[in-house]
Amino acid sequence: MNETPLPIREIAPVEFRRVWPIFQAAVAGGDVFVQTTETTFEEAQHLWTAPPTRAFVVEGDGAVVGSYMIRPNQPGRGDHVANAGYVVAPEARNRGIARALCEHSLETAVRAGFTAMQFNFVVATNESAVHLWTSCGFEIVGCLPGAFRHAKLGFVDVLIMYRRLGASRT
Amino acid sequence: MNETPLPIREIAPVEFRRVWPIFQAAVAGGDVFVQTTETTFEEAQHLWTAPPTRAFVVEGDGAVVGSYMIRPNQPGRGDHVANAGYVVAPEARNRGIARALCEHSLETAVRAGFTAMQFNFVVATNESAVHLWTSCGFEIVGCLPGAFRHAKLGFVDVLIMYRRLGASRT
Repeated sequence: MNETPLPIREIAPVEFRRVWPIFQAAVAGGDVFVQTTETTFEEAQHLWTAPPTRAFVVEGDGAVVGSYMIRPNQPGRGDHVANAGYVVAPEARNRGIARALCEHSLETAVRAGFTAMQFNFVVATNESAVHLWTSCGFEIVGCLPGAFRHAKLGFVDVLIMYRRLGASRT
Repeated sequence: MNETPLPIREIAPVEFRRVWPIFQAAVAGGDVFVQTTETTFEEAQHLWTAPPTRAFVVEGDGAVVGSYMIRPNQPGRGDHVANAGYVVAPEARNRGIARALCEHSLETAVRAGFTAMQFNFVVATNESAVHLWTSCGFEIVGCLPGAFRHAKLGFVDVLIMYRRLGASRT
């Protein structure tokens, strides 16, 4: 579908309450996120918005339908590599929102001076995510055997994905 | 050298002050640790001892000559994989202390119920560490291009190393 792109904007930590329902939906399946339904609002808010982490949302019809967070993946001598995480509301899937969030996060990363982005924990059985991140320029640079306890499949592998951010993107 | 093994024991967070000098020495070179000399005592203490992280020390002649920390590498559905970090005092190197700490940490991990251990950030140019962890049963499962800003060499690669912990070790 070729819809008009929805606007994406940065939020303050207090606005995480509008992301919380889709965060909860994202962990409920036990098939994608390392966090579980036992994660508290405060823990999720900290993960998603505590500086230096920054959070962004995309809204449709007045509701948050997707969000991403971006942060340095490491402190100190590793803080040139960004890390990001994404959630999309169940009712808003298959509309290109995850791709739009990823592309926006890559632009945010470049503007913030990061020279690469790393995903630490891509569940290998989440094929649509692996395909999407690959199409966004990420490569699989590592595999952690059995590092995720999938709600339905038991122990499954986890992929580490990485993308350099060329200065030419700015 | 075949010296009598030094005892290794768990410490409370308040005892981190005895680890702090060797932590500072470990980051000073800018060649091994992602943390820098700007890391504060409080930040280092939190990294090394804040629950669920546990810290252990090895002492010689009344001083702490080495230490490790161990924790779940991820929350929730990834908390069966341990992560650990090690520091050895400069004057105590080449005495097998790092190996003794690693072997102790693997036993601690098994007793705590972890089924694997992961090192997230092994600087590729730190050949003695890569060799040591390999000899302790770890495999290189990933490589992050240019993810470490080495004080002397500039951007160098970072390895992810992983070892399953068989139930037969208990």
